Amino acid sequence: MLEKFVDVLIGKPLPNEQTSHEKYNILFGLAIMASDAISSVAYAAEEILVVLIGVLGLAAYNWLGWVSLMIIGLLFILTISYVQIIRAYPQGGGAYIVAKENLGIRPGLVAASALLIDYILTVAVSASAGVAAIISAFPALEIHKISLVVGLIIILTILNLRGVSESSKIFSIPTYLFILGMITMIIYGFIKYSIYGATAPMINTPIKATGALSIFLILRAFSSGCSALTGLEAVSNAVPNFKKPSQKNAKIVMILLSSLILFIFGGTSLLARFYHAIPTKNVTVLSQIAFGVFGRNFMYYFIQITTSIILIMACNTAFTGFPMLMYVVARDGFAPRQFTMKGKRLSFSIGIEVLSLIAGVLVLIFKADVHSLIPLYSVGVFLSFTLAQTGMVLHWKSSTETGWKKRALINGIGAIVTIITTLIIIYEKALAGAWIVIALIPILVIIMASIKRHYNKVAEQLRASKEDISNIELGKKFTHICIIPIASLNKATLNALQYARSITPDVIALNVSIDKTSIEKLKTKWAELNTDILLVTKYSPYRQIITPLLKYIEIISNAASENEKVTIILPQFITHKWWGNFLHNHTGFLLRENLLRNKNIVVSTYPYHLNDEEL
Amino acid sequence: MLEKFVDVLIGKPLPNEQTSHEKYNILFGLAIMASDAISSVAYAAEEILVVLIGVLGLAAYNWLGWVSLMIIGLLFILTISYVQIIRAYPQGGGAYIVAKENLGIRPGLVAASALLIDYILTVAVSASAGVAAIISAFPALEIHKISLVVGLIIILTILNLRGVSESSKIFSIPTYLFILGMITMIIYGFIKYSIYGATAPMINTPIKATGALSIFLILRAFSSGCSALTGLEAVSNAVPNFKKPSQKNAKIVMILLSSLILFIFGGTSLLARFYHAIPTKNVTVLSQIAFGVFGRNFMYYFIQITTSIILIMACNTAFTGFPMLMYVVARDGFAPRQFTMKGKRLSFSIGIEVLSLIAGVLVLIFKADVHSLIPLYSVGVFLSFTLAQTGMVLHWKSSTETGWKKRALINGIGAIVTIITTLIIIYEKALAGAWIVIALIPILVIIMASIKRHYNKVAEQLRASKEDISNIELGKKFTHICIIPIASLNKATLNALQYARSITPDVIALNVSIDKTSIEKLKTKWAELNTDILLVTKYSPYRQIITPLLKYIEIISNAASENEKVTIILPQFITHKWWGNFLHNHTGFLLRENLLRNKNIVVSTYPYHLNDEEL
Repeated sequence: MLEKFVDVLIGKPLPNEQTSHEKYNILFGLAIMASDAISSVAYAAEEILVVLIGVLGLAAYNWLGWVSLMIIGLLFILTISYVQIIRAYPQGGGAYIVAKENLGIRPGLVAASALLIDYILTVAVSASAGVAAIISAFPALEIHKISLVVGLIIILTILNLRGVSESSKIFSIPTYLFILGMITMIIYGFIKYSIYGATAPMINTPIKATGALSIFLILRAFSSGCSALTGLEAVSNAVPNFKKPSQKNAKIVMILLSSLILFIFGGTSLLARFYHAIPTKNVTVLSQIAFGVFGRNFMYYFIQITTSIILIMACNTAFTGFPMLMYVVARDGFAPRQFTMKGKRLSFSIGIEVLSLIAGVLVLIFKADVHSLIPLYSVGVFLSFTLAQTGMVLHWKSSTETGWKKRALINGIGAIVTIITTLIIIYEKALAGAWIVIALIPILVIIMASIKRHYNKVAEQLRASKEDISNIELGKKFTHICIIPIASLNKATLNALQYARSITPDVIALNVSIDKTSIEKLKTKWAELNTDILLVTKYSPYRQIITPLLKYIEIISNAASENEKVTIILPQFITHKWWGNFLHNHTGFLLRENLLRNKNIVVSTYPYHLNDEEL
Repeated sequence: MLEKFVDVLIGKPLPNEQTSHEKYNILFGLAIMASDAISSVAYAAEEILVVLIGVLGLAAYNWLGWVSLMIIGLLFILTISYVQIIRAYPQGGGAYIVAKENLGIRPGLVAASALLIDYILTVAVSASAGVAAIISAFPALEIHKISLVVGLIIILTILNLRGVSESSKIFSIPTYLFILGMITMIIYGFIKYSIYGATAPMINTPIKATGALSIFLILRAFSSGCSALTGLEAVSNAVPNFKKPSQKNAKIVMILLSSLILFIFGGTSLLARFYHAIPTKNVTVLSQIAFGVFGRNFMYYFIQITTSIILIMACNTAFTGFPMLMYVVARDGFAPRQFTMKGKRLSFSIGIEVLSLIAGVLVLIFKADVHSLIPLYSVGVFLSFTLAQTGMVLHWKSSTETGWKKRALINGIGAIVTIITTLIIIYEKALAGAWIVIALIPILVIIMASIKRHYNKVAEQLRASKEDISNIELGKKFTHICIIPIASLNKATLNALQYARSITPDVIALNVSIDKTSIEKLKTKWAELNTDILLVTKYSPYRQIITPLLKYIEIISNAASENEKVTIILPQFITHKWWGNFLHNHTGFLLRENLLRNKNIVVSTYPYHLNDEEL
């Protein structure tokens, strides 16, 4: 029943062969990758205006375009750089792979930690922001805010455990609706402005200049606006997730994505200027633009609703990116190997579960408050951008490709700009919470390096040298001693005895009972068996079963010589009922764990399948 | 590290031999058993007065004594009855055992369900009431109420997982302080009243009669006051927990406990009359009595504080009783067998954990509100009292002991009184929440009966008849086929190969790799091994390891004849580091689970112990 319930939730297990069908084509891939990058665009112009208007007043609108142009320039550089990365690294991995291969393992782990933290924050921030958008529309839901965010994360977890392709189909609809809405708004807004000029703005707060223009102010605005570019790296991380030819498809998606960002970000920046949108607490800049362009009609609500949905969908990028990156990191030995295992539906189940668990805890700690989560957010992105760009510079330097200088120059400019951005973000936001990320990254790097070291040491201890291999005497004859713990003589134990006896004549049946009558009963039955197999019975007055069993086995195994192998055979009956594990085989389980952990004893499980229909 | 943390929390594992040292002597046993029973005494007089004063006004004080006398009469009957049960049933089990043996299995399960529910409610109610008492003193804690109650339950869980004796030592101090305080208050109160007469009461609400005396009113007051007697059955359930001679010690504790209830309940009832305590919302009757006797001095606060502590301690009775009853029920096959297993510290860990989990959930659902929990509380106790008493009547009828008629009469009166009380409680409280308990009992009975049926059917399927036993051919020669899944040739796999080869010449090494180079590497190494053991390699392009392994093993096992036995040998390396399980052996684990569940294949684990100091 429990299994059926899980099946209903996450879908029937998929056979292995379906793996390639679960991959992205261009349209679904774009939808999956777009939500994170594009939803942040919806906020970027506002972020820039917040910085500029406070200081420059109305003059801000003149500088908004310049800052936007700088960001679009950075977008170009990053896009070219990432297309180059996709070409150079078809196996995926993005900043982590690039940094690791060109800068070394530590920088690679720094990039990986930064990206992993960012994926988690993407889930926490986007889910919280999405719910906040819903709550703006339905203020009555305010008291359920945290529950709604957590519920949302749970729903996304289930959808993603169902497998990527199905999820992307679900998620592509609102993504494309949002894109459609934005394009319509930008085109219609331009036409309307060129014919009628500006309409009355939605918000009419008087604004005035309080300071002067400075390079630092522009850089600050620029760094705030850079939130438009978060999510760009997702495509390069997920190259192997694309349908074949996966590199080509990934490149097309990368370029389409950048074009969309360019159009939507550039368009909204200009519209913000045309329609004099002013950042305020309650109404977003995007909402003011939509009001300016459409008035309060159907299209206004369409933009509002698709915006709030795409914010929720932005979470999903992380549900794709985090498990994929964990897979790559785990494959390299820097994370537990479970992360390389695909689940029933061919998704990286453990990665998805870990992501949603940590993000859920973050939401609870920060009480789903976007404003306390945001300062943690952008450090990681730009740190990983910087590492990837720097890595690419070294990559071109060491390559013999023609035109490497030009490529290295592009990445070099990108590296300088992103490192400056990173430093500015750290300077501005360290005290507001970014210190958590700055402290966490070295901790994660140390943990990852320790895991790798552990795996290496295990491999070293296990390594069989040429001598080990040629010296091992595979024909060595051992004397086998089989011990079978039995509670009574039943079909399962009888079969196990028969099996043991066919391996070795030295079989010992071992019984521990808490009352003496069952010992007598067993002895009587044993006599009927008419065998020379030794039956050892122990009376245990304190109701303990496992300790006396272990003690006796220990005595035998300690007495065994080097030519003797002790094997414990545990008869186990199997039921396929979902509650079977609650009701059976606990003694066997504990015995097995204990013997394997503490003794050099082979532990065999001899199954006896019960007829489940009669149970 | 995790294990060390657990060790610090619940104490180092105890060796088996310490079992008898963990048992109660009289003083600690009394402290363990007393808190539940005595803490409810603290409320009993108040419960009676609430009923009487509302109707009778000042005349209530005249009837309080009579109702108290009735309850004391019931206390006598129950005490004699339970002493008789302790004598008749030294192995413990209380109402469950008595009902099961004399009335049949179903009534036994009804009693067990009623008691189990009541233990859970004891935890939820007492913890909530204890915290409510603290909050009365420190109103600022009000906002943390639920967290405090849950925290309290967690602390009690940890203390109880540490083992009974240590817990009882901790718990006995406040219990005896409370008893000391109550005795002092009663004696001093009597002396003071006999010399000076009544002092000015703490509360001076005018009260007046609103109705007339009726038998029904007295019975209602009686049933409310019966809460004084909850917890009485704990001693008879826990007989085997006492030090030897356990029956004698349990009887002494039973009589001491009843004497304490008699003295404290009788004394507070009389003092309530002398000092005209009036039930109100904010100040308990006990608090008013303490004020009347001592004024607002040290002793007043002493009584208040020990009362609130003993309410918290009352939870602990359930932490002793619930796992013990689950043990008895599980031993009879009506509950999963895990409940018969003792934990590291020789306590029934699973029972303790289940109890605190359900109680914790109840606290969350009912928001730690005592008043919503109370109506669920007393149905179970008196239902189990009734079943125990009725069972004892039949017990005496079928016994040949001299004086059985007198004993049967005592229990018969008890049965009649308790069944009337039960019916009154159901009538009064069904709609207020007792319906949950009334509905839950049959559900639990059905589940318990199903578990027993399942165990019986499994036993039936497993049962080896005389023919099975005499027909089994223990000397049968099987052809053994051993399959060893290997990722590479290392020390663990080499040893496993050697072991397999010593069992049978038919050994197959099976490798599934996700890249072709590692297959080539393995083949080269294998050649050095210079063996005729078959190496089968499979290339898995979709990164799946387990499915191809299972498929190949399935092909072999399906082809095996009846005289052939397929054994899978899983080389497993063991580390004792606490994080070892996070990092290793997942493939082996999944393979093992899958094979045992689905195939008639023996699965052996061949351990290779790593040198942990070097890891």
